[in-house]
Amino acid sequence: MPRFFMAGSNIMGGMAIIRGRDAEHVRVLRLRPGEEMIICDGEGTDYKCRLVYADKEQAEAEVIEVVRCPAEPSVKVTVLCGLPKGDRSDYIIQKCVEAGAYEIAFFSCDRCVARPDKPEKKLERWQRIAEEAAKQSGRGIIPRVSWAGDFTAALDLAVKKELGLFMYETGEREALDAVLSENKEAQSVAIITGPEGGFAEFEAKLAKICGLHVCSMGERILRCETAPVVALTATMYATGNLS
Amino acid sequence: MPRFFMAGSNIMGGMAIIRGRDAEHVRVLRLRPGEEMIICDGEGTDYKCRLVYADKEQAEAEVIEVVRCPAEPSVKVTVLCGLPKGDRSDYIIQKCVEAGAYEIAFFSCDRCVARPDKPEKKLERWQRIAEEAAKQSGRGIIPRVSWAGDFTAALDLAVKKELGLFMYETGEREALDAVLSENKEAQSVAIITGPEGGFAEFEAKLAKICGLHVCSMGERILRCETAPVVALTATMYATGNLS
Repeated sequence: MPRFFMAGSNIMGGMAIIRGRDAEHVRVLRLRPGEEMIICDGEGTDYKCRLVYADKEQAEAEVIEVVRCPAEPSVKVTVLCGLPKGDRSDYIIQKCVEAGAYEIAFFSCDRCVARPDKPEKKLERWQRIAEEAAKQSGRGIIPRVSWAGDFTAALDLAVKKELGLFMYETGEREALDAVLSENKEAQSVAIITGPEGGFAEFEAKLAKICGLHVCSMGERILRCETAPVVALTATMYATGNLS
Repeated sequence: MPRFFMAGSNIMGGMAIIRGRDAEHVRVLRLRPGEEMIICDGEGTDYKCRLVYADKEQAEAEVIEVVRCPAEPSVKVTVLCGLPKGDRSDYIIQKCVEAGAYEIAFFSCDRCVARPDKPEKKLERWQRIAEEAAKQSGRGIIPRVSWAGDFTAALDLAVKKELGLFMYETGEREALDAVLSENKEAQSVAIITGPEGGFAEFEAKLAKICGLHVCSMGERILRCETAPVVALTATMYATGNLS
């Protein structure tokens, strides 16, 4: 069923008013009066609607049913990634939105090869990828994509969550599965993964001092664009959001 | 540490003989006598070696230590995917090798849009991607990539495994986490995922009749190239191979 994101304020008195790009989308999809669609308010609520009419500028649909979006995980996972090179950030966004991330942010750190002067420029593109992936995968929110700043700014975001996971490839670490199975009830989780070259030792130390769990995902070396998806999937599995 | 795959027969009497492309690779990496490297026999055994000499055609290294490759999972997972369009198969191979797949095969089914006349042509390319990913992620084997044939051929491969998981998007399904947590000790697992359009209902029925578990991974719709990675990661997590 086609899926639209719309601010809740456009849904009133059992009717949804569809304008602008979304109205055009209704036309492109050749939806006819009587056909059903889902309008999501972007905050986790789905309005199952039936199209009443559609013209060039506007469409109107009648609300049939209001439900909590079944695709939204019970846990809010913030994925924080060291900025990778090229289009790997696009890939991370698309896959993490599909896999259930609540929000995604990139940061710069010691071994980042990619160092854009103005990462803010990428935000519009990143957010559009998140929106497309959210629609495609049936999410109830459009996960926000942002630029966190430097490594300490990323740590600062992570320590505010109930559970903070820092993925690291060497040295003394906790097993990810052990940490997750002890924290199945966490409502908010932060996952930090590194750029191509991984993290410097002092960054891992700092993360530990800040109270994050420095975690291992086994001995396989994951690419910087694969690690966040794997860590996020493990978190979804452990918290009962993959069933 | 640089990593080479070599047939075990080239390692004898505590010495490893490196020829051909691998000898060239030693030269390209500018490895010098005394430097260490790992030579893997492709069957899960790692030989930690010290380079003795290297010339244009050949290199020789002394074996210092023999260990079971720590990156190899305890479970052998066969990933079977409905052939997707374009380079999505490349992506599936790279990510599934990183995530620990034992082997990967593609098949054609009812809703496959991609229908190459000669999928065998792709095999060389696919196998090269698997080899690169295996080296990069520190695997102890090079997972085999193959063309399974049609849907029934894929089912036939799956039913031979201890646990067969069939990922399906609608209807009556078992929760993936429930099935996995009841089968933590499985030594061989098959994961079947569909192409862009998913599976036809009759295919899901057939899978069930054949004794596979028809599974749900939650209400988020995963792209055909994302589903195998997520299902594989869940399997690795459940069997203790992500710690």
